[in-house]
Amino acid sequence: MLIVQKYGGTSVGDIERIKNVAKRIVETKRAGNDVVAVVSAMAGETDRLINLAYKLTPDPDLRELDVLISTGEQVSTALVAMAIISLGYKAVSLQNHQIKIVTDSSFTKARIRKIDAYKLNALLDQGIIPVIAGFQGIDEEGNITTLGRGGSDTTAVAIAASLMDYRNDIICEIYTDVDGVYTADPNIVPDAKKLDEISYEEMLELAVSGAKVLQARSVGLAMKYNIPLYVKSSFTDSEGTLITKETQKMIEEVVVRGIASDKNQAKITLLGIPDDPMVIIELFKAIADANIVIDMITQTSSVEGLTDIGFTVSKPDFKKAFEISKDFAKKNGLRNVEGDLNVGKVSVIGIGMVSHAGIASRMFTALARSGIKVQMISTSEIKISCIIKESDVEKAVKVLHEEFKLSETEQRSQRSKIKN
Amino acid sequence: MLIVQKYGGTSVGDIERIKNVAKRIVETKRAGNDVVAVVSAMAGETDRLINLAYKLTPDPDLRELDVLISTGEQVSTALVAMAIISLGYKAVSLQNHQIKIVTDSSFTKARIRKIDAYKLNALLDQGIIPVIAGFQGIDEEGNITTLGRGGSDTTAVAIAASLMDYRNDIICEIYTDVDGVYTADPNIVPDAKKLDEISYEEMLELAVSGAKVLQARSVGLAMKYNIPLYVKSSFTDSEGTLITKETQKMIEEVVVRGIASDKNQAKITLLGIPDDPMVIIELFKAIADANIVIDMITQTSSVEGLTDIGFTVSKPDFKKAFEISKDFAKKNGLRNVEGDLNVGKVSVIGIGMVSHAGIASRMFTALARSGIKVQMISTSEIKISCIIKESDVEKAVKVLHEEFKLSETEQRSQRSKIKN
Repeated sequence: MLIVQKYGGTSVGDIERIKNVAKRIVETKRAGNDVVAVVSAMAGETDRLINLAYKLTPDPDLRELDVLISTGEQVSTALVAMAIISLGYKAVSLQNHQIKIVTDSSFTKARIRKIDAYKLNALLDQGIIPVIAGFQGIDEEGNITTLGRGGSDTTAVAIAASLMDYRNDIICEIYTDVDGVYTADPNIVPDAKKLDEISYEEMLELAVSGAKVLQARSVGLAMKYNIPLYVKSSFTDSEGTLITKETQKMIEEVVVRGIASDKNQAKITLLGIPDDPMVIIELFKAIADANIVIDMITQTSSVEGLTDIGFTVSKPDFKKAFEISKDFAKKNGLRNVEGDLNVGKVSVIGIGMVSHAGIASRMFTALARSGIKVQMISTSEIKISCIIKESDVEKAVKVLHEEFKLSETEQRSQRSKIKN
Repeated sequence: MLIVQKYGGTSVGDIERIKNVAKRIVETKRAGNDVVAVVSAMAGETDRLINLAYKLTPDPDLRELDVLISTGEQVSTALVAMAIISLGYKAVSLQNHQIKIVTDSSFTKARIRKIDAYKLNALLDQGIIPVIAGFQGIDEEGNITTLGRGGSDTTAVAIAASLMDYRNDIICEIYTDVDGVYTADPNIVPDAKKLDEISYEEMLELAVSGAKVLQARSVGLAMKYNIPLYVKSSFTDSEGTLITKETQKMIEEVVVRGIASDKNQAKITLLGIPDDPMVIIELFKAIADANIVIDMITQTSSVEGLTDIGFTVSKPDFKKAFEISKDFAKKNGLRNVEGDLNVGKVSVIGIGMVSHAGIASRMFTALARSGIKVQMISTSEIKISCIIKESDVEKAVKVLHEEFKLSETEQRSQRSKIKN
């Protein structure tokens, strides 16, 4: 089996931890697997480098910022490779320019275009463990780029995907400082349970809805190529969470898989808009032109040719979006525009939900019984989200975790089957 | 004019100093020159990285050591480029893999094979200031290499040489923490004079004889391509020292240019060797096979078919060289082998020396008058070196500086002619 192991910043945070990472890689190799390691910068290093840049100038050139911060991962690759070699195994560190992880030229937030895995596969065939710098790439002109925060997860999945031309039976293990994906944030719900398994779609909704275990981009990429992701702690030997394709069993057995929450929400409501698609499109186009992402949108049914529209944006985008909305209202003679920064989102997530009636009504009833007023609702096949008062968010997570009896969920474990 | 400016570790030692470096580069550009900057790692950074490696393992893999320490220069290139850009000028940082500074694969002590200056020249034509990582290269397979301590000087000269296909009128400026080349070490001779100008050959002898201003390798390279080197402080505006081709004036006017000293010497003497070249070659082959460099060799005239041979090596090589010599003596039935760690070397250097009689006798007389016993002598066209007691070295430097009236030397200055 080919195992791509990604180690985050805390996992390679100091010399002792790097030695442990090397031991874990060597054990995986010794067990008969091929291993590719993808490493982040040592915890704190990226911030140290960014601070150097901002001490120099308030507006650092983005190309040079990427040249600067990409050194963090390079240091980690060299140290991890050294540590593996000192244990008597063969390893080589590889930078972006050495295995050609080609990205576009959007410095500080580049997207991977292609990876030529030929060299990587040749190294694996020689029994060598490649240790690859996560988070970075190189554009067509050879400039150094970075993928944005958390980009090392994406590197690991992209490396795994690129090796599918040469190998089957590939898994991507993400080592981090939490030991898996939980039914809710354990800081809010102390008896939240660790999930043994979750589908890509559910994980994607959890990630987008504020769970910080994995970058949504890396989950989407894993889903696209159907690469199993296994998230686990590098500090303990406890089992983690397997993120994989939905199984029939998943759909049939479990309805609600987890509760996610996100306080980084703000709401804008426009009252009395003409119920004319061309007018409404004009509003959303103006907001999109300002590079603002809209999360939820609701529209009430039309009364006398007029309708109300509510939508949410992230808190930092609120001010700009509110201005655009007010300009739009003025231009179109609307009755009123309301803005509210004190909102948050709570979401119930589960792949089986779509075929089970009554989840939504159980959700609303539970919230109402606890005195939590729902301001907006949005539903998808595997998620129901409600906008509520920001100060109600923790309480709502607890109430819903209790309502759907998630601490009692009997967790499936297919990990052992996949691992062996 | 094209000016390649090399900034050492202390010159880019902190954010304020990096801002000053950027100002100096921009001023040079604004004065109508094309500028290429070559930068070292921030002072202390290379040692910090090496310490990390040795905390991990007592015997770090050399390929990975180069990957690790080369990040130091990468950080400097990004920060210097950012600083230049923030002053409103165009700059790009360039790493080894981006301009293809191709070296052999001797990790930690690689030698430059070729540089393709096409891209560099194109950037200069666009008015862009390239900021290049010194000290490092890339081998034919794309592995990162480093050139050894002080290698940034060599990078700067090699870059200047590579641009000779496209430009003429090139000078290489070496910014460092001393303000030029002196007639003797100012720590020993307080009234030592800064030299305005010195020939490559003289500088080479000074560097090899222990003056630490420039790496001998970079001086040799500059001599080969006839690129003027200008050494000056990045902390003051005072004039530095121009290292250039010898001029007729240099040969005619000045005899002794400087006094160099080196305490890192040890002496071995073999008494009563058969005066047979084949036997003597055997000794030096055994020492060369142990990778030990011999500095001076003297041989007395033969008496009854026997001769005495003395040679010097660096102090760290003494133990090994002494063992080899004793084995050789035993095998060949020699009378005696003597070793002495308490020696040092003092040298008088000057390109005009060869045509001036009496320099050697003035040197020996001055030393004798001060009670300094000369143990070995070696002469070349531009240098006379004496091995003396280590504890006599400082005194000898002072005595010779005084004897040849170096603090009174009227210094030539051709700098202004060359600069404009």
